[in-house]
Amino acid sequence: MKLSDYSTEQLEQFHEEINKAYEDFKARGLKLDLTRGKPSAEQLDFSSALGILPGDSADRYVTGDGVDTRNYGGLNGISDIRAIYGELLGIDPSLVIAGDSSSLNIMFDLISFAYIWGTQDSPRPWKDEETVKWLCPVPGYDRHFTITEHFGFEMITVPMTDDGPDMDVVAQLVKDDPSIKGMWCVPVFGNPTGITFSKKVCEQIAAMPTAADDFRVVWDNAYVVHTLTDQFPEVHNVIDMAARAGNPNRFWFMTSTSKITFAGSGVSFFASSKANLDWYTAHASVRGIGPNKVNQLAHARFFGDADGVKAHMKKHAGSLAPKFQMVLSILDNRLTEYGVASWTKPEGGYFISLDVVDGTASTVVDLAKQAGIALTGAGSSFPLHKDPDNRNIRLAPSLPPVAELELAMNGVATCVLLAACEHYLGKA
Amino acid sequence: MKLSDYSTEQLEQFHEEINKAYEDFKARGLKLDLTRGKPSAEQLDFSSALGILPGDSADRYVTGDGVDTRNYGGLNGISDIRAIYGELLGIDPSLVIAGDSSSLNIMFDLISFAYIWGTQDSPRPWKDEETVKWLCPVPGYDRHFTITEHFGFEMITVPMTDDGPDMDVVAQLVKDDPSIKGMWCVPVFGNPTGITFSKKVCEQIAAMPTAADDFRVVWDNAYVVHTLTDQFPEVHNVIDMAARAGNPNRFWFMTSTSKITFAGSGVSFFASSKANLDWYTAHASVRGIGPNKVNQLAHARFFGDADGVKAHMKKHAGSLAPKFQMVLSILDNRLTEYGVASWTKPEGGYFISLDVVDGTASTVVDLAKQAGIALTGAGSSFPLHKDPDNRNIRLAPSLPPVAELELAMNGVATCVLLAACEHYLGKA
Repeated sequence: MKLSDYSTEQLEQFHEEINKAYEDFKARGLKLDLTRGKPSAEQLDFSSALGILPGDSADRYVTGDGVDTRNYGGLNGISDIRAIYGELLGIDPSLVIAGDSSSLNIMFDLISFAYIWGTQDSPRPWKDEETVKWLCPVPGYDRHFTITEHFGFEMITVPMTDDGPDMDVVAQLVKDDPSIKGMWCVPVFGNPTGITFSKKVCEQIAAMPTAADDFRVVWDNAYVVHTLTDQFPEVHNVIDMAARAGNPNRFWFMTSTSKITFAGSGVSFFASSKANLDWYTAHASVRGIGPNKVNQLAHARFFGDADGVKAHMKKHAGSLAPKFQMVLSILDNRLTEYGVASWTKPEGGYFISLDVVDGTASTVVDLAKQAGIALTGAGSSFPLHKDPDNRNIRLAPSLPPVAELELAMNGVATCVLLAACEHYLGKA
Repeated sequence: MKLSDYSTEQLEQFHEEINKAYEDFKARGLKLDLTRGKPSAEQLDFSSALGILPGDSADRYVTGDGVDTRNYGGLNGISDIRAIYGELLGIDPSLVIAGDSSSLNIMFDLISFAYIWGTQDSPRPWKDEETVKWLCPVPGYDRHFTITEHFGFEMITVPMTDDGPDMDVVAQLVKDDPSIKGMWCVPVFGNPTGITFSKKVCEQIAAMPTAADDFRVVWDNAYVVHTLTDQFPEVHNVIDMAARAGNPNRFWFMTSTSKITFAGSGVSFFASSKANLDWYTAHASVRGIGPNKVNQLAHARFFGDADGVKAHMKKHAGSLAPKFQMVLSILDNRLTEYGVASWTKPEGGYFISLDVVDGTASTVVDLAKQAGIALTGAGSSFPLHKDPDNRNIRLAPSLPPVAELELAMNGVATCVLLAACEHYLGKA
């Protein structure tokens, strides 16, 4: 029976039980963490060989085309790693720039450069616009929203469907309002929903008319090869799609090896039209001389080729899939009968998006915290950390070992039930 | 006899000889490069061990205080390398942030953050100032000037003395004009002069009254340990000096290992007051999660401690000093008697600053180019690449092997003499 159908007496009886379970859990004094999407030590060990650059001393640091990676130069990164990622993404390697570790850095810089100097398609720098608005499909990635918040952009939320952002809403918004300059997207195994945009949605985003000539989509393909199954998702070449639709400069396409090799010490990639890359490098070349090419070469040698990346990702899937399975089965076993929550069942990525009873997400997070379980703050997947329904919680199963995860998730389920029960009692 | 004292007939006779020497040189079809201050292959080999992280697999990636460098986090860098550089610079390690490879990136970001959001001492963001002016001691580092040019700042040149920038000029300028927001400085073995600021000049910069409350000095200490002798220069803790003088937030202090280990793959450092660091990280934490900690750990293990850095720098001195000696002796042997040039005799750093006959620097660079010698463009050590006297040429002796350097410098001397001779003939 659904908890919402319980009588007051039944709720009180249930409260006594679940509160005892909660207090027992709390008394154990555990310290568990389900906050950020960090790879586990087991996963990091898959890349241990990265610490030792192969080759003898004469050629250890030299690229396939003869560049000594130890010296200055090469703003766009080395050919070896650009070729591997070009093949992996199905994009001409000349349109793929390899950078330092963080694609988030590149996203920030792109917005910063457009803010200060405008893009090549802008009538003026974005700083000189009266208002800049930005579309934020929700729930989404908190660090994306923090960037647009920091620049003072007005963030407009767009609901997600199972195929990506609700394109009726998006198309309508961008058609008439020239102050809408862009949109955040995580097109594959999205953070936190795990949703992958359908090909149709990709094509609609590429082709839709926008009032702003300098409308840009930050296409953060962070999880492009992060499958939890045997299958890799199809990578849609949105840069080509957009060019065919007459919008060649629409996409800023990003990915990185952060959750493939070492989370803080990988290689980032930025792919776009030639005009966009030229615009970016015109500014980036003033900012500096070039990325860490030694690290890029280490990665190229470690992967070997695009298939090497995929083979490596299967190791991650082998480590992560049982954790996701564990979380999903506890949610199912503990919560389904009470009808107090729904959750995504992703086939890739790093997160499970949990919706609890409306109005109780922040209570669940507080209860968990008191019981020694750190959860990502309620509302953090929404702009300004404001979930209008106060129901969404992002779960990150990757970091803890399975046994800890089982413990933590049982604790979380108890908190969800306790918060729901108290919510219904308060209303009764 | 000085060439300027030659009679027309003597000049014509000399022209015939020197022009023949030039044509003979040109006919050899050489390809020599004295442009950028890149370390040589020999120097890069000193750090070859960096490619192999020591330790067994269990602790290879773990810092002294137990941080797994492979994972996310640690915006300010790892303690191990901050401690080494804190000791080396004589600055409390808690005030030293370790970043990715490039300190130039940090300088750009600091100016960009101040431009968009203002510093904590600014009445408004710099983008909202009618004019922002910036002091540029000349000759100086071209990439510094390119940054302030890119942001549209008005660059005011200040002459250099043997002790640093002419402080009478600087103090007078900053005292009354609140639109002067900052100054570029390379305080030790400066680019391109090799000049090291005296302690008195450091103290004057720290203490001088400025009309702008948010006046900042970019203290680019790129060559702080780059001696060519047995002696290391004293490092002045300008952050303390400024705090004592009541200007705690005046200095943005930078250095890096770029010309110590691998030029494009080292570790950068940013030291400043706590208030400045807090301001910086408030923005940098939106830009990203943290720097490449694995590379920082590799550097910490490679150096061991501050003395390890110094021991390593002596290897560089051993490689570089003979090259500088070669350049200086050719300049002396070939040019002194004619009185057509003067040059610096640096005890450290990467450059020799050569002043030729006024009005002939661009001709010298062109002649050299036609003879297969690439020199840094005339005027490149001045804002907007405009040397008002057209006389300064930056020589970078580090990259070529000694034999090539000898060849190239003899070619350069020939070009200097030919240009001077034609200049005097044209005037005659």
